[in-house]
Amino acid sequence: MSEIFVGIDLGGTNIKIGCFDCELKLIRKTSMAIRAGYRAEVVVEKICETSEKLLADSGLSIEAVEAAGIGAPGPANIAEGIIISAPNLPQFRNIALRKMVSERLGKPVVFENDANAACWGEYVVGTGKGVKDMVFFTLGTGIGGGIISNGKLVHGFKDNAAELGHIIICMEGGRLCVCGQKGCVEAYASANSTAARATEALKAGASSSLKKVLEEKGQITCKDVFEHSAAGDILAKEITEGTASALGLLCVNVLHVTGPQRVVFAGGMIAAGDLLLSRIRHFFKQHIWPLKEETLEICFATLGEDAGIIGAAALAKQAQKAGK
Amino acid sequence: MSEIFVGIDLGGTNIKIGCFDCELKLIRKTSMAIRAGYRAEVVVEKICETSEKLLADSGLSIEAVEAAGIGAPGPANIAEGIIISAPNLPQFRNIALRKMVSERLGKPVVFENDANAACWGEYVVGTGKGVKDMVFFTLGTGIGGGIISNGKLVHGFKDNAAELGHIIICMEGGRLCVCGQKGCVEAYASANSTAARATEALKAGASSSLKKVLEEKGQITCKDVFEHSAAGDILAKEITEGTASALGLLCVNVLHVTGPQRVVFAGGMIAAGDLLLSRIRHFFKQHIWPLKEETLEICFATLGEDAGIIGAAALAKQAQKAGK
Repeated sequence: MSEIFVGIDLGGTNIKIGCFDCELKLIRKTSMAIRAGYRAEVVVEKICETSEKLLADSGLSIEAVEAAGIGAPGPANIAEGIIISAPNLPQFRNIALRKMVSERLGKPVVFENDANAACWGEYVVGTGKGVKDMVFFTLGTGIGGGIISNGKLVHGFKDNAAELGHIIICMEGGRLCVCGQKGCVEAYASANSTAARATEALKAGASSSLKKVLEEKGQITCKDVFEHSAAGDILAKEITEGTASALGLLCVNVLHVTGPQRVVFAGGMIAAGDLLLSRIRHFFKQHIWPLKEETLEICFATLGEDAGIIGAAALAKQAQKAGK
Repeated sequence: MSEIFVGIDLGGTNIKIGCFDCELKLIRKTSMAIRAGYRAEVVVEKICETSEKLLADSGLSIEAVEAAGIGAPGPANIAEGIIISAPNLPQFRNIALRKMVSERLGKPVVFENDANAACWGEYVVGTGKGVKDMVFFTLGTGIGGGIISNGKLVHGFKDNAAELGHIIICMEGGRLCVCGQKGCVEAYASANSTAARATEALKAGASSSLKKVLEEKGQITCKDVFEHSAAGDILAKEITEGTASALGLLCVNVLHVTGPQRVVFAGGMIAAGDLLLSRIRHFFKQHIWPLKEETLEICFATLGEDAGIIGAAALAKQAQKAGK
């Protein structure tokens, strides 16, 4: 019997599903939009129907499936597989998602939060391959992440770990973060904060090629900042440097906590490529101590949007192997 | 046969040794001074002779010993039991301490760094009892620490984890730390930095009852600052608040990384008692997000200087049980 693993990535606006062979090679994937107002029962039915169709399209039946994994938004009780609440899915309050999907599919299901699932995907088959200690950051609207310590995901008490965007890097007079803290790294270096810092500078009178973008579109995005930086605009460069510096410092801080061998950045912002990566590495070297040479590897993720489904499938596989 | 575990805490100026029963109850302990210039062979012989004498004084022989544990200064290769170097023991360069002690005693020996051994002691029988996720800080000349994640010590790649005093909390214009980084929490909140901030304020003209201490003794200690703070001196209070604020923020930061249930502070500075503890808790609440109520428990250690020998013995016990 073939051993198939299904990976499910439940987001606020869509669901991605992939089926994988026992080597975690992707056989086929699909995605579908969901609405914020959907009830959990509807979402579960969509997940399961779509999974079955995906298998059928690949010439497989549900019998071939060994187990499935779900990465879901949170906060969640990961061990129990329960979504406590989800900002983008307001109907989800204390939803025993793992149990519901497992009963509907008739297969074992593992549950993880979405950032951890993506982290695990990069760890198992992406940029994290070959290390045992890794920290994973998602750079998007906000900054999230996951931590692997000695080959295991770090969950913390009540699954409280890895709120990595909310490490405070500015003790006094720090920028206000959306979380309510002051001085979080997310308040400087997320896509939203990068754009906001540029907008603030323009409104304070800085001259920049971004000014025209702001006037024409009414807003500036992080992508605009990086593009104008690449084109040589001084303000855009300064803002980009500020983002890279905060991220370099973030690398110093996580190095001094869990001691990763490799730090992996993922998310929309890494489309900036070497413009950003080389500067994060530069600022890491600026901020890190001279006591000894630190060999921390700072990399960009390679799996893109598939990290979540791969990670979920990989967790399903791992749980099955451990249970045998 | 009685199961005895020996715990050894190798410091830069003395060695502490304790023998423990199988419930990790202390039977007897001792300590001896060592000189910085001692060669490793001499230190090993002193450790082993003293252990044998300690056992004999307790009516036990080496035969009763199941295993020993050593907490040692570093950097070290923990898995291999090798001290790479030790600032206070200049003769120790790539010393296979675990092997040397094990061969001399004829018993299994486990090796851990000193801060981790103390962390493990507090975790197993001290303030960390009953939790699975804990962060441990030593507040002394510098700030060190250890991390327990899901019941295990976090070592990181090349045993690089838990350099917790060197988390940077001030991104720009931060104080220079002895490590060479700028803005480390240690540069604000260690005993040395607390005293240094007071001294700098006095030299800048601040009025304070500490001025007399500085004039009479030529220097100020952290203890002086806390005592004058307790007596109502305004400057001493401000300096103490700065220390507590940095430590409260440190609690926020580690909470957002490994998600501990409890944070335990140890080391000389905790002699300040509630004067310090209540303010760390206060500033934690100031710095932490309002998103949800965080129930992090912030406590002071209870084992004092015995944490290292207890932790070393407990690690020896754990390794023996795991091996059986």
